[in-house]
Amino acid sequence: MSNSVASNNLTDLFEGIKGARWATVASGIKKNVAGQQASSDIALLELAANSHIAAVFTQNAFCAAPVQIAKQQLERLNTQDKVYCLINAGNANAGTGAAGMLAVEQSIAAIAAELSCDTNQILPFSTGVIGEVLPVVPFKRHAAQLVNGLDSKHWLPAAEAIMTTDTVAKFEQEKFLIGDQTVTIAGIAKGAGMIKPNMATMLSYIVTDACVDQSALVQCLDVAVNQSFNRITVDGDTSTNDACVLAATGQSKVSLDQHHSEWLLFCQKVSSLLQRLAMAIIRDAEGATKFIELNVHGGLNTEECLKVAYTVAESPLVKTAFFASDANWGRILAAVGRAGLDNLDTNHVEISLNDYVICANGGRVENYSEAHASDIMQQSEIKLTINLNRGSASECVWTSDLSHDYVRINAEYRT
Amino acid sequence: MSNSVASNNLTDLFEGIKGARWATVASGIKKNVAGQQASSDIALLELAANSHIAAVFTQNAFCAAPVQIAKQQLERLNTQDKVYCLINAGNANAGTGAAGMLAVEQSIAAIAAELSCDTNQILPFSTGVIGEVLPVVPFKRHAAQLVNGLDSKHWLPAAEAIMTTDTVAKFEQEKFLIGDQTVTIAGIAKGAGMIKPNMATMLSYIVTDACVDQSALVQCLDVAVNQSFNRITVDGDTSTNDACVLAATGQSKVSLDQHHSEWLLFCQKVSSLLQRLAMAIIRDAEGATKFIELNVHGGLNTEECLKVAYTVAESPLVKTAFFASDANWGRILAAVGRAGLDNLDTNHVEISLNDYVICANGGRVENYSEAHASDIMQQSEIKLTINLNRGSASECVWTSDLSHDYVRINAEYRT
Repeated sequence: MSNSVASNNLTDLFEGIKGARWATVASGIKKNVAGQQASSDIALLELAANSHIAAVFTQNAFCAAPVQIAKQQLERLNTQDKVYCLINAGNANAGTGAAGMLAVEQSIAAIAAELSCDTNQILPFSTGVIGEVLPVVPFKRHAAQLVNGLDSKHWLPAAEAIMTTDTVAKFEQEKFLIGDQTVTIAGIAKGAGMIKPNMATMLSYIVTDACVDQSALVQCLDVAVNQSFNRITVDGDTSTNDACVLAATGQSKVSLDQHHSEWLLFCQKVSSLLQRLAMAIIRDAEGATKFIELNVHGGLNTEECLKVAYTVAESPLVKTAFFASDANWGRILAAVGRAGLDNLDTNHVEISLNDYVICANGGRVENYSEAHASDIMQQSEIKLTINLNRGSASECVWTSDLSHDYVRINAEYRT
Repeated sequence: MSNSVASNNLTDLFEGIKGARWATVASGIKKNVAGQQASSDIALLELAANSHIAAVFTQNAFCAAPVQIAKQQLERLNTQDKVYCLINAGNANAGTGAAGMLAVEQSIAAIAAELSCDTNQILPFSTGVIGEVLPVVPFKRHAAQLVNGLDSKHWLPAAEAIMTTDTVAKFEQEKFLIGDQTVTIAGIAKGAGMIKPNMATMLSYIVTDACVDQSALVQCLDVAVNQSFNRITVDGDTSTNDACVLAATGQSKVSLDQHHSEWLLFCQKVSSLLQRLAMAIIRDAEGATKFIELNVHGGLNTEECLKVAYTVAESPLVKTAFFASDANWGRILAAVGRAGLDNLDTNHVEISLNDYVICANGGRVENYSEAHASDIMQQSEIKLTINLNRGSASECVWTSDLSHDYVRINAEYRT
């Protein structure tokens, strides 16, 4: 099962995750577009008592007020009680100093009062414009509506509520057996490029009904994020607000830890779901016309494969060549050459597009067909493979092209 | 004296450098544009016997055939005899394998035969389209014309002959006294962005009439390049063909080495001339509408200042904000935050535009004037200053914005 959907149809088919409920409201934080229905912009996730929760946050040293507070709260959660994620879109509350911190505390307090819970039980997340203090009134005004709206089926509305410049809501689910018991995982994500004018970007929430040991859950999330959200790049710019939460409600009959015989299966399913969400972000990247799977083979180790992969994936010249459907192996090889690998002999590097070898032995292959390469480059999904031919490590990243629209979108003025 | 000029007027005023002569021809390697005069595309530089010569080359592991051969030749030059630089534009002879190496040898041989010199005395350089073998016939056909055309005044024609997508020829000269003796330095450069569709880019040739000790000359060039060509970035992409040559003909009455009391003056003059050439490249960058001087102050050391400077200067989001004249400090701070500095507290980072502080204490300054910031951002030359406020190291790099035209130029098909 793999669904990136823009319509609501799928929510009817999806029965949710036991122990997880979502609510959303249109509070006005996202500016309304004249003549259009107000967009939902606050989402509240409730996780049942005794859930385990793992989270990773942006590594950017400039991180937003909600990120700073969510990190602190995560350390002192009482997981024997219910836990909440309070997410708003339209305002990232980043670069807002002490006033921003206060706004987070007040918005949490407004929801906690309505829930009659401790403020420590609410993790805050924000995405949207940088540099403006989060308004608190929308939270106060809609607290009751949010709390009363909690429903286990509201995954897709939640995926829509956290969108900023995304053009498609991103929802994925996964169902599989462990022994004779069904385990369900569902997740949503938002992000389109890294930062649309001042948009501080990627958020993702994944919940499973399995009971998963806390330390195992943390490990599972780390591995999955490394194979998914940490393997995509639009422009190399990382956000001030990125966060990814993985929760296990423990409401199914399956109990897992690192010693369980099916532990790797579970981790692989989580990774796979995160990869699909990550790929959905790249497919929805700002101005993107191409989805590129970039495989680097034959490296000495993971680190050098990733160095090559990111140098190529973030090269403006390679990205504009993809936009132009130009099989410009010279730019790709030049990016490989500047990736900083020790003793790299570019004469041994092989470059393929959808398994058609275009470059080997330091130059274009003999009998190269420009027409064939050009046919491949016209496609909207392209597999670029770079074989360094000097080791056995491999890595894969996903990226997009650099188009006129990327510049247009990111040059548009903030107001 | 500082002149970046497109007209020929200056050559009449400039008497050249004793011991250096240039010749140029229009050989047809650069494709002719219908209805326009054929462009010159081969330049030959003659350096008198007993000149000292230093050179630096691209650090890209994928380097072109002429770069490989020039590096070898440099090691075995007989500097008691005349030395030549043979440069062509229009074809980079990169990614051309054994056929490319043979073409370099044959083109050198054609010129050496006409000069009656050893082939080892000719250093080859190419710039232009990647992936096509350099044609040898143009060199054979124009060898006599080149050799007969050598003239000490032909600096600007040489600057024009090595242009590819440059819109302006780049020539600088410097005259100053050491003791009561005049020293002259002149230099040309080419480059516009790093790589226009398949253009392998930056070349620069600087000659002084001073007599400079060989090891001192090498050191002088290293320092000067580090403060100039290694401090500019258009898109972070580095070329397969970059080279910079500094020659000292020793035909003035000044003799210098590291122990001379005026050695630092000389080095500073060379650095300053290279900086002006480097800035001329950024002003001529592909699609650029803005010239940005980026100063990073208050770092713990040079390395972290440069990390911040390049992360900001190469951020597509920062570059599009400059294109849009948007004083988007959030994007700048987010780029600083991801530059990978240990224990950076972004609350201490201060960001200024032309000395107007726009961001401090982790956010926008109080009494911030959007109108004033916007006025600054409308200018075509902008000074961006980032103060990390945690040390006393400073560095400066120069960069350009990311415009629609950058994408258009680099997306245009090779043919």
